[in-house]
Amino acid sequence: MPDVFDKCRDWETHRIFKSAGLYPFAPAVEEVRSPSEVRVGGRWIIMAASNDYLGLSADPRVQEAAREAIGTRGTSCSGSRLANGTHVLHLELEERLAAFLHREAALALSTGYQTNLAVSALLGGDEVVLSDQDNHASLRDAVRLGGAVERVFRHNDMEHLRWLLADTRPGTGVLIVTEGVFSMAGDMCDLPRITELAGRYGARLMLDCAHDLGVLGAAGRGVPELLGLESGVDLVMTTFSKSLASLGGALAGEADVIDYIRHWASPAVFSAAMTPASVAAALKALDIVESEPEHRERVMRNAARLREGLRDLGYEAGQAPTPVVPVHVGDFMLCLRLWRALFDAGVFTGAVIHPAVRQGREMIRISATAAHTDAQIDRIVEAFGEAGRTVGVIGSRGAGRSRL
Amino acid sequence: MPDVFDKCRDWETHRIFKSAGLYPFAPAVEEVRSPSEVRVGGRWIIMAASNDYLGLSADPRVQEAAREAIGTRGTSCSGSRLANGTHVLHLELEERLAAFLHREAALALSTGYQTNLAVSALLGGDEVVLSDQDNHASLRDAVRLGGAVERVFRHNDMEHLRWLLADTRPGTGVLIVTEGVFSMAGDMCDLPRITELAGRYGARLMLDCAHDLGVLGAAGRGVPELLGLESGVDLVMTTFSKSLASLGGALAGEADVIDYIRHWASPAVFSAAMTPASVAAALKALDIVESEPEHRERVMRNAARLREGLRDLGYEAGQAPTPVVPVHVGDFMLCLRLWRALFDAGVFTGAVIHPAVRQGREMIRISATAAHTDAQIDRIVEAFGEAGRTVGVIGSRGAGRSRL
Repeated sequence: MPDVFDKCRDWETHRIFKSAGLYPFAPAVEEVRSPSEVRVGGRWIIMAASNDYLGLSADPRVQEAAREAIGTRGTSCSGSRLANGTHVLHLELEERLAAFLHREAALALSTGYQTNLAVSALLGGDEVVLSDQDNHASLRDAVRLGGAVERVFRHNDMEHLRWLLADTRPGTGVLIVTEGVFSMAGDMCDLPRITELAGRYGARLMLDCAHDLGVLGAAGRGVPELLGLESGVDLVMTTFSKSLASLGGALAGEADVIDYIRHWASPAVFSAAMTPASVAAALKALDIVESEPEHRERVMRNAARLREGLRDLGYEAGQAPTPVVPVHVGDFMLCLRLWRALFDAGVFTGAVIHPAVRQGREMIRISATAAHTDAQIDRIVEAFGEAGRTVGVIGSRGAGRSRL
Repeated sequence: MPDVFDKCRDWETHRIFKSAGLYPFAPAVEEVRSPSEVRVGGRWIIMAASNDYLGLSADPRVQEAAREAIGTRGTSCSGSRLANGTHVLHLELEERLAAFLHREAALALSTGYQTNLAVSALLGGDEVVLSDQDNHASLRDAVRLGGAVERVFRHNDMEHLRWLLADTRPGTGVLIVTEGVFSMAGDMCDLPRITELAGRYGARLMLDCAHDLGVLGAAGRGVPELLGLESGVDLVMTTFSKSLASLGGALAGEADVIDYIRHWASPAVFSAAMTPASVAAALKALDIVESEPEHRERVMRNAARLREGLRDLGYEAGQAPTPVVPVHVGDFMLCLRLWRALFDAGVFTGAVIHPAVRQGREMIRISATAAHTDAQIDRIVEAFGEAGRTVGVIGSRGAGRSRL
């Protein structure tokens, strides 16, 4: 009988990583000085790969709220939400999120991945999901788990989406799924066109706002607020592991829909509840999102400064005004080499390769946070200059057109 | 176009819950006095539904470790393990777990649900998974997500498993998946027979030890240790939200297999890392599991006292010496009514109905913990006497044969 473990013995990418000495994943953080400065391999380096956009994981108020919850409620809820794991804190977080997002109800789950997966409860074999090609893996997994038919439209290609809507057999329920800010390339979906198409064809729209909640929109409600299109989105998803300095996620929408997911989604029903510390941290971070807009102003200024510096060096660094700054490379080995050179220069970025992005779209992903100082932003840009010249992805003059 | 939300409007079970006033889920914990005493609806009641088997969520050493990690490392890791989310604490937890379980390597994930789901990376369309009928939903979801063929054997029916093994087409990789202690009924798998069959047919064996790690076996390594069969299990899964007083889970096994899952399992790659507080809590709880066997002795004594008291009342309360005490009811409405009567009498149990168990297997699930006092155990038994007579599931004498 063949062995189900055989596939683990010698897989190609791993061989490349090892043979080239260019393994770019999971450098272990030894110490944390701030959300933008960590010690790795004995050196203090700039963290430029964190999704702690507002820098709140280090906020003393957020930390104190989490510590207090441990003392009063323990380190674990020791069971699922539907059994013994619901505390009043969970309900408070859900009510606060629903009110913040102007929705009837919200459901908090223990990770963002599971939050997207929970949408599987809405998706049976009779339904069709129209997904943007660049959607996060958790959204793909949700469709697969639910058993619906997935039809993928080219990234942000509204003509393709329209064609798929028109091509759907009458009598089929349709859910369009896309992201507010795409996690890797940092660009935004074409929400005006999508809401218009959803309305015209009677489809529902789910929007993953993991990377825009807390950051975009005057009040921090993300892309739908920024574009004045909140009523066109039927189901909003967000996570707590980014701007809300915690771990978990939430779905927000009509009360009936949220209630149904709470009772029928396997990742909601059959998983232990968020810890008291994580609920308390997210609640306090939400307070800060609501009362202190200066953090999102700061992260957007930092992102703009980063993009401008990188463009001056000749990099293609994305157009959208979001905290995610993608530096296009487009080649697997070059991406690993650039990542390594940046790391050696004291800048911790993300090497994004397949399957996180399509082949040919390899990139270095940087995220700006409110915790970065101007000096750190400038140092990141400087390191991209040095590393890019060393690796050969930008010209030796360090300015002008990229050779990519 | 039909609406994908239609199914959420009016579903049958919900109508029953509401019309009967017997909704048995998610009573919100207002305050926690100990893992065995909580305030709900303004009343202090006995918690008899928690999976905090060793009572460590309230241990001052565990709490202090979690609080300290928040101060030094923040409230969130703000990214996935492969990107920026790995701290040395995660590596320490994985190394400690691998050493504790006598395995080459371990991988920690952010929830137990996702830990089982991560096994999907091993399962493609060419493979067959042989699953016990009573396996946890997360194991079923893993097979579905991976795309393997699932063949289900009757609960603990070794003749059926043998038949399925013999019936598998030659050239097909086979993974047998079962649980050490089954989460709902608290019984154990027939590990001697399963390991013998796996060996004979060349299949791999994965064992979910969520409910036995920390509790069973002289050293707390679960059912495989208890039965002296650790070498027959190829992949061990456990969670941190039970005996380890945290949130998350781990897979432990051969280094190649763990490394493959780390890089290819979507729930590992595309999900934010465990929080520093949760890692630190699990690490400290593991210390206590290794050094203080008295907690598992205590929980087993409490479970035995519970089962004995319930049997004297005429209940069918399971045979297996595990912390999970299932009180068989076998009827949906009766189960809800018994749950409610127990709750009114000040005992918080779990009402277990479809889809958590098969129809006809409805039960009240109690879990003994090391935190329960003798007086609390006796009070739980007393409440089952009163409630059972009121609802009519045991005879009015409160002893002798059950009417179930």
